[in-house]
Amino acid sequence: MSSLPPVPLTIEGASCLHQMFRFRWRHWLKLDCFHQRQVVAEATKLLGPLEAGTGAANTKQSAVYSLLGHKGDLLLVHFRDSLEELNQLEVELARLEISEFLEVQSSYLSVVELGLYDSTVKTYQSLSDQGIAPYSAEWNQAIAEVTERQRTAMAARLYPVIPNNKYICFYPMDRKRAETQNWYTVPMAERQRLMHEHGLVGRRHADQVKQIISGSIGFDDWEWGVDLFSDDPVAFKRLIYEMRFDEVSAVYAAFGTFYVGVRVRVSELPQLLGLSATANPG
Amino acid sequence: MSSLPPVPLTIEGASCLHQMFRFRWRHWLKLDCFHQRQVVAEATKLLGPLEAGTGAANTKQSAVYSLLGHKGDLLLVHFRDSLEELNQLEVELARLEISEFLEVQSSYLSVVELGLYDSTVKTYQSLSDQGIAPYSAEWNQAIAEVTERQRTAMAARLYPVIPNNKYICFYPMDRKRAETQNWYTVPMAERQRLMHEHGLVGRRHADQVKQIISGSIGFDDWEWGVDLFSDDPVAFKRLIYEMRFDEVSAVYAAFGTFYVGVRVRVSELPQLLGLSATANPG
Amino acid sequence: MSSLPPVPLTIEGASCLHQMFRFRWRHWLKLDCFHQRQVVAEATKLLGPLEAGTGAANTKQSAVYSLLGHKGDLLLVHFRDSLEELNQLEVELARLEISEFLEVQSSYLSVVELGLYDSTVKTYQSLSDQGIAPYSAEWNQAIAEVTERQRTAMAARLYPVIPNNKYICFYPMDRKRAETQNWYTVPMAERQRLMHEHGLVGRRHADQVKQIISGSIGFDDWEWGVDLFSDDPVAFKRLIYEMRFDEVSAVYAAFGTFYVGVRVRVSELPQLLGLSATANPG
Amino acid sequence: MSSLPPVPLTIEGASCLHQMFRFRWRHWLKLDCFHQRQVVAEATKLLGPLEAGTGAANTKQSAVYSLLGHKGDLLLVHFRDSLEELNQLEVELARLEISEFLEVQSSYLSVVELGLYDSTVKTYQSLSDQGIAPYSAEWNQAIAEVTERQRTAMAARLYPVIPNNKYICFYPMDRKRAETQNWYTVPMAERQRLMHEHGLVGRRHADQVKQIISGSIGFDDWEWGVDLFSDDPVAFKRLIYEMRFDEVSAVYAAFGTFYVGVRVRVSELPQLLGLSATANPG
Amino acid sequence: MSSLPPVPLTIEGASCLHQMFRFRWRHWLKLDCFHQRQVVAEATKLLGPLEAGTGAANTKQSAVYSLLGHKGDLLLVHFRDSLEELNQLEVELARLEISEFLEVQSSYLSVVELGLYDSTVKTYQSLSDQGIAPYSAEWNQAIAEVTERQRTAMAARLYPVIPNNKYICFYPMDRKRAETQNWYTVPMAERQRLMHEHGLVGRRHADQVKQIISGSIGFDDWEWGVDLFSDDPVAFKRLIYEMRFDEVSAVYAAFGTFYVGVRVRVSELPQLLGLSATANPG
Repeated sequence: MSSLPPVPLTIEGASCLHQMFRFRWRHWLKLDCFHQRQVVAEATKLLGPLEAGTGAANTKQSAVYSLLGHKGDLLLVHFRDSLEELNQLEVELARLEISEFLEVQSSYLSVVELGLYDSTVKTYQSLSDQGIAPYSAEWNQAIAEVTERQRTAMAARLYPVIPNNKYICFYPMDRKRAETQNWYTVPMAERQRLMHEHGLVGRRHADQVKQIISGSIGFDDWEWGVDLFSDDPVAFKRLIYEMRFDEVSAVYAAFGTFYVGVRVRVSELPQLLGLSATANPG
Repeated sequence: MSSLPPVPLTIEGASCLHQMFRFRWRHWLKLDCFHQRQVVAEATKLLGPLEAGTGAANTKQSAVYSLLGHKGDLLLVHFRDSLEELNQLEVELARLEISEFLEVQSSYLSVVELGLYDSTVKTYQSLSDQGIAPYSAEWNQAIAEVTERQRTAMAARLYPVIPNNKYICFYPMDRKRAETQNWYTVPMAERQRLMHEHGLVGRRHADQVKQIISGSIGFDDWEWGVDLFSDDPVAFKRLIYEMRFDEVSAVYAAFGTFYVGVRVRVSELPQLLGLSATANPG
Repeated sequence: MSSLPPVPLTIEGASCLHQMFRFRWRHWLKLDCFHQRQVVAEATKLLGPLEAGTGAANTKQSAVYSLLGHKGDLLLVHFRDSLEELNQLEVELARLEISEFLEVQSSYLSVVELGLYDSTVKTYQSLSDQGIAPYSAEWNQAIAEVTERQRTAMAARLYPVIPNNKYICFYPMDRKRAETQNWYTVPMAERQRLMHEHGLVGRRHADQVKQIISGSIGFDDWEWGVDLFSDDPVAFKRLIYEMRFDEVSAVYAAFGTFYVGVRVRVSELPQLLGLSATANPG
Repeated sequence: MSSLPPVPLTIEGASCLHQMFRFRWRHWLKLDCFHQRQVVAEATKLLGPLEAGTGAANTKQSAVYSLLGHKGDLLLVHFRDSLEELNQLEVELARLEISEFLEVQSSYLSVVELGLYDSTVKTYQSLSDQGIAPYSAEWNQAIAEVTERQRTAMAARLYPVIPNNKYICFYPMDRKRAETQNWYTVPMAERQRLMHEHGLVGRRHADQVKQIISGSIGFDDWEWGVDLFSDDPVAFKRLIYEMRFDEVSAVYAAFGTFYVGVRVRVSELPQLLGLSATANPG
Repeated sequence: MSSLPPVPLTIEGASCLHQMFRFRWRHWLKLDCFHQRQVVAEATKLLGPLEAGTGAANTKQSAVYSLLGHKGDLLLVHFRDSLEELNQLEVELARLEISEFLEVQSSYLSVVELGLYDSTVKTYQSLSDQGIAPYSAEWNQAIAEVTERQRTAMAARLYPVIPNNKYICFYPMDRKRAETQNWYTVPMAERQRLMHEHGLVGRRHADQVKQIISGSIGFDDWEWGVDLFSDDPVAFKRLIYEMRFDEVSAVYAAFGTFYVGVRVRVSELPQLLGLSATANPG
């Protein structure tokens, strides 16, 4: 039994980029109002359709948030079908005139991920019971079928639509690998149990807070990115505080920087940037 | 008994933003005196009413401090009713001409929080004695009543008026989650005892130092923010040094950056910025 | 037996420099189109032949990647025959006009390295059996012969050609030296066993992901650099996630910053920088 | 006995600010010589009297040092009677024209502190023997008398004159709070013993090195600041190296950044900044 | 025996400053060629004699290296007779016109140091056998004689000539003070043994790599600086990798940033900076 592989199955969906920008107000305010409108109009032309979403299921989507505090002024969250598409978008944004006023502060690269602890344990055990050796051709084939089936069943969660809530909270996190408490040496069954309990907390708060989890091992400096969406920001605090007492978080979670923003519709950009909504160039 | 939830109840009040700015003296001193007066007048027009406080109980308030050392020149402390109001204020400040001379160095985002360890233990036990299961509808209802009652009783502390003392000391802090000493795995009764002892120290210094504690889990990179106010800055040192020998601080506290400032009334801003108080544009 | 040296034999090949640049779009976009073409043409003239590779086996090679996120816009990966050649290249690049638009963000210096755990154990044991004392002239001679033989056999891997895959993933890493888990005090045989298991994971993913490992002890701030190449970036995540459950990674690996980029052919540079491919100066 | 408070008594004196500046040579050298003289003359007019010292005992004093290495070019050390005075001085300096050429790199805020381990143990025990409860009115009164008496006796050390030595060494430090080695949970008697031994080392080097210890709990990011003064900088190394083998330093000390400077008399500023000493404007 | 002092004797020689600069190519390339030559000529006039060495034994010396990677473009290594001389040199360099193109990135301040573990153990024991109490006048006198004798014998190593090798590798390091593994609480005899073994590794590589060790306790942020010189940079890697398996390094060493450079003769500066060697102004 101890020879079952320790790696839980995961399925991956949309490629995801968070971009944190400082807005160069000082330079912006020196621009005349007519020029400002042109800049915003050009940005709106690119971002407007992205807000609505493109692609088969409108899941190639981007959203804008006004960040609180010094970590940035604007947060752009992008979901796409590949890293290459994200890279093209980055370049496209950099060529807009509004980029003259955006100074990149940080970013986060990940792919939407669903961890399949329950299916994993069941599948590994069943394959073992059938005497199929891990990593054999037959085993690989069976695993591919399981993940493919899940990918289809979970398509809507793998390629999520960005929730319409007023507030976002984003942070990256790791599972600790300390000397006596190392997530990656905990037996699978124990990890499954801990993740299950952890999931229950999220479900208790699901009315108030929607979550999108993305994986970033190999993509960025933490192992996962967490996006929370809510209309009441205190709900973020309650959820995360409650989770901190979970065994898996209390003992094994390490957290990066927290970003909190207020959703800005693309149509509200002129107002955010100090332009009255009435007039419009062209 | 071990099935009682480990999470202490908290109640939340005002949303709170600390902004640390460097003042660009070099650029300011190149401005002619007439222009300087205009800049200060515009800033005063926004900040003056905020100093007095707006809202039902004048608790939507902002205060200005002159910071010591290289971590910044000015500290603005804002209390508002929501994160959205804080975000609007940030943008409003960024559009003032004085922002041309303010370079944001840091910030801290939190909400005023009161931890209810004593009520929590009593309530959880009583609900358990009545056979009410945690997180059941009945349980949730009872908890909501307790916190609502406390919110009403503590309204003045949840939406505090900024004390008038000459000095402020602000710092963020965490409870440690180390391998053998992890606050989040300490049993509730033990945490209650430690927090009680910790509170006694604060009370012994209450004549000298006023405190506002805000929670920032999910909002910023530390778990709590602490604001101390006093007319004698050595009182900050004595209080914090005494607390460092508390079991809860000695073992479980981790501290961020300390900021110390001297209160500046909005009416004193011209003087601070090198303008004589007598003349005034317009 | 305990007197066998604890140091595994390694063989070294190409000198390797990774350069991460931010592209100063803001300044670039202010250049007129004719001038932009000149700048790109000059860069292309240097980089084009380097992409193809020079030297006896075309292994003096450079490749360009468009990076994702804020850690940089362009990644240049260079393989050369010596550090001196790399240094000359750095200076040559700095003198190009395109450097006006490149702001160095980071870099990594290393040499391609192959660890010879299996040969080491066999050789040390055999020399010991022959009664040859470690570090004696005879011993040094025998070791030199072993490594020389391996260097010849492995020449193609020591001086690798840069794979043509669409994506690159680069990160530096260390072996931990913590108080109870210290790689450098683990007995050789145990390290050999762990590295062997670690290698099996890599081999299972070899179809999907090519690896180049370089050593940087004495050259840069981590002990090794890892380059992964694939056409499917999720393969990076799967490989590294699986490896994280390896005993050697779970317990002893520490990871630096992860960089992910999309390959850009030198002929595609004009397009990346916003120039249509049709026209060309001169 | 275990109910004696664990907090050692301290007495505080002068408020102390260290300011580390980079000198913008590039801009300075573009200034014409006549203008340079004006700038230095204005700075000298402020700093000259501060070097001599003002206030009742000439202890409101400032000194200038030329720093070694990239951490800064100039170090200003200020002793004043309050944080407010230090803050006013900061603003006054910022308004000088020389500030155009000074870029603040770092700073340290503290108050001169004397720890009274011996008096504390004696006093706490004596009050306990008299049956006086800790923190009772009577107890507070007795403690106030002890500290007041010490403050008077130690006035010269609490408000020190800056030694005239050629070299300064400044660094901040903490007492560790690690999982098994936590200064703040060590019994008072043991801390007293360790601090006594630590003091003996300092005394053995007193001929060569003068010390000023300041406390910064609540003021800055470390717990103490240490200023050493000597005519032989190798004496700094010998003293600190010997102390590192002290039990209290070996086990409990954590050190911040070290700054080393050469004393510059205000009258030598023109020479340091490249002006011949002979001519002078006005 | 346990009362023997735990501090090993050291002797100190030349004061040593490493300066890491970024070269502002972008600004340099805008200078006309005639002006470039003037700038280089002025720098050469100062640096030329320093390269040859001044002072009684030509040990007041400076060397220039072209650094690899983003940590800097130029490394200047200076040996002088005192910190004050180093400080004067820093100011002298800052006043050169070439400093307009040099941006200081980092630096390291230290004094050449030889640790005398063997003499220390012998001397302490012998003084103890004679019944001479540590730190008594007689003891101090005896110690002074020992160190004076060693200083004379080791003069050439304390005031070293900079080796002529093509490559330099510089890094700072500490001895760890962790909870269970603390160098400063290891008994002297054990430290002596470990340092002896450590020295053997260095000696095995002495043909390939020359070392200069400098002490920086009290001078900079790490305890020691290590300079390695070789014509084959892979020799740096081999030496440091082998040392990493030493008990003293494996368990007690902590390493800072590594800098690797290629020696540039002052006469080669014009070429490095893009000037043909043939012409020369004046």
